[in-house]
Amino acid sequence: MRLPNNTENSLSVGDIIERLTSEAKQAQLVLGQSSHSARCSALKKIAERIRTSREQIMDANQQDLSNANDKQLAASVIDRLTLNADRIEAMATGVEAIADMSDPLGKSLAKWEVPSGLEIERVSTALGVIGIIYESRPNVTVDAGALCLKSGNAAILRGGSDSFHSSLLLTELIQDCLEAVGLPRTAVQMIPTSDRQAVNELLQAAGKIDVIVPRGGKSLVSLVQEKARVPVFAHLEGICHIYVTQSADADMARDVTLNAKMRRTGICGACETLLIDRSVAHSLLPEIASALLEAGCELRGDEEARQIVPAMHKASEEDWHTEYLDAILSIKIVDGFEDAISHISNYSSGHTESIITQDSDLINRFLSEVDSAIVMANASTQFADGGEFGMGAELGIATGKLHARGPVGAEQLTSFKYNVRGHGETRK
Amino acid sequence: MRLPNNTENSLSVGDIIERLTSEAKQAQLVLGQSSHSARCSALKKIAERIRTSREQIMDANQQDLSNANDKQLAASVIDRLTLNADRIEAMATGVEAIADMSDPLGKSLAKWEVPSGLEIERVSTALGVIGIIYESRPNVTVDAGALCLKSGNAAILRGGSDSFHSSLLLTELIQDCLEAVGLPRTAVQMIPTSDRQAVNELLQAAGKIDVIVPRGGKSLVSLVQEKARVPVFAHLEGICHIYVTQSADADMARDVTLNAKMRRTGICGACETLLIDRSVAHSLLPEIASALLEAGCELRGDEEARQIVPAMHKASEEDWHTEYLDAILSIKIVDGFEDAISHISNYSSGHTESIITQDSDLINRFLSEVDSAIVMANASTQFADGGEFGMGAELGIATGKLHARGPVGAEQLTSFKYNVRGHGETRK
Repeated sequence: MRLPNNTENSLSVGDIIERLTSEAKQAQLVLGQSSHSARCSALKKIAERIRTSREQIMDANQQDLSNANDKQLAASVIDRLTLNADRIEAMATGVEAIADMSDPLGKSLAKWEVPSGLEIERVSTALGVIGIIYESRPNVTVDAGALCLKSGNAAILRGGSDSFHSSLLLTELIQDCLEAVGLPRTAVQMIPTSDRQAVNELLQAAGKIDVIVPRGGKSLVSLVQEKARVPVFAHLEGICHIYVTQSADADMARDVTLNAKMRRTGICGACETLLIDRSVAHSLLPEIASALLEAGCELRGDEEARQIVPAMHKASEEDWHTEYLDAILSIKIVDGFEDAISHISNYSSGHTESIITQDSDLINRFLSEVDSAIVMANASTQFADGGEFGMGAELGIATGKLHARGPVGAEQLTSFKYNVRGHGETRK
Repeated sequence: MRLPNNTENSLSVGDIIERLTSEAKQAQLVLGQSSHSARCSALKKIAERIRTSREQIMDANQQDLSNANDKQLAASVIDRLTLNADRIEAMATGVEAIADMSDPLGKSLAKWEVPSGLEIERVSTALGVIGIIYESRPNVTVDAGALCLKSGNAAILRGGSDSFHSSLLLTELIQDCLEAVGLPRTAVQMIPTSDRQAVNELLQAAGKIDVIVPRGGKSLVSLVQEKARVPVFAHLEGICHIYVTQSADADMARDVTLNAKMRRTGICGACETLLIDRSVAHSLLPEIASALLEAGCELRGDEEARQIVPAMHKASEEDWHTEYLDAILSIKIVDGFEDAISHISNYSSGHTESIITQDSDLINRFLSEVDSAIVMANASTQFADGGEFGMGAELGIATGKLHARGPVGAEQLTSFKYNVRGHGETRK
């Protein structure tokens, strides 16, 4: 994948993307027709090689870390960039989980016969060539490569430039394992330049890339959504709600809200707004608020909520629109189910919402009426994750309604087609 | 839906689209939660009202036809615009077929439990607000309105201006039936202006329209694909192939090819290129060519094919890229299965391809290896149609790989979401 220096220097970024996408397409034709056992063997080899190459991976990572320290990057960026023994083991077990899942390709999704005599079958197929644009998190290289490989898609990876050495080593490791089982190395490729123009070229490569997956913050995702001339799997933000109803169990309301907000505040499934029925605000809110305040969470409430919990700051209209990704929660007293649904319908980003209630009718109505990718009852919104959904890993959460919605695992990286078997039928 | 003239004159096109999309969104919230029986009652009333309003419909259509004659529109345009007793009856039976299909909403697509205890279910939901942009074919008003209604989606219709009176009457008829069963009239709306700026506004209405379906010729579809800032279900063209193999039945090869090309030459499922194995070209091609020539089809072949059938014109490289939509067929001799697949992979538009063979291994390989929305064996490509697929009707054929692929019927106008039932689970 690495070009001799003299060649690479003479190629424009456009030429490089042209070559990568063309090689990816050829590789995908082979990968998309490969047996599930070949793809699983490659995945198991990758897990094994990650474990046996721990020292090498940490050396490459050390190069990136030392550059990052020289550039005085933020501690949070350096934390994401860092690979240690635990994180390397987690990459390996993640790949094994993907290997162990059933084949997402060639699944018969539906089958029927029509009066003309034709037998029609809907069968899952790979999407084709997938471009993944992500920040300087080397583990995404492995997650993305493994999910694409499992689902018969060719991957073109573009990680943040600060993780260049780690990502390159991991990509080459994946390619060696592909080759070892007789699959094309070019099924997983990394863009061999840190020129930012490469991202633009990728986003414009209509007809050569089947879908782009941006994995990163809001600025990356909005850039991709704005500039892409190819389909995108993404969500811009996760303004997730918890709605505590009149019949909620008090301990559950407190524990689930605390977990949904504070387990990790920086992930898209973190709760940003708590809605609580007026009739139980006096009895339930003080205890929920204490638990959050004690955990270091800032609370921003409407007037009524502030009267119950004076330690709250005042919420403005903007708060209901805000994905804090931080230890801040907005709180609103609502006038029952309709009012809560109406707030969610106006302010939700369509990612994940959860109702806390013992009333099974309200559970059914909430699950039916809230039109978000993931709608929960009596559980923490932080479960919005492909791993927690049993998908092995995820490329992210999609909020688009066409096809992939919710966690994007290997099965979500497939399309389908209609196979039709006839007996010489001609149409009247 | 019709505004008083003074109001309409003072509203900009942007204001009109803003109001239509906002009313559509409100109506969809009701329609998406309505019972299947309510939606079916509305559909059955529509079929009944179409039959009982035949004279009125023909009067409105007469206004359009008389304007069309004044404007000296092409005979083919006038033919599509014309409604007669048979065509009106066909609209009614089409709506009844849609009513009789099962509910595409709320279907449990998958259900599983994960180790944390959460019960997860994937459930079909409506897409939301669908914009349909079509030519002056009044029957599309009814097909599109009925499919959207069945699938719980609000429809914003924009038919060609030459069918304005017919489409408006049919839209009002649909709205009356919605109201009669207690559903919102604004669930199906027509854009009340023929200003072309309305189409641009619709295509830019990101966040207000969930998907746009263009239904018409290549110029309309490419305009929509280029300008749309919202997702689009579409196919640009149907360059469909028939591949006749060495083991094809001679009569079947002739009959299926003739039907695939000549039954109707102007539809997207019409065959445009015939590939035939070299080993049977001498024995099978003359008879296939005679049948086509006799039916008035022009043949354009490669050198080898022309040596076998001298009446053929010479095919150029451009022919393999061309959707004729006319009585013209390009013909190429291929060197077996791999060569045929390679030609299809290079020149197909991903719509529909068919293999004619008695060899079941080749059938399986063709169905598996050709990555088009519809892949057939031993049947005419003209079966690529929602009605023939048993979907009642279709909004068109989609070649995008995300979600809807192939005929877009009511079920294809749905999305899904994950419903998750928990018991107070918080995430570790």
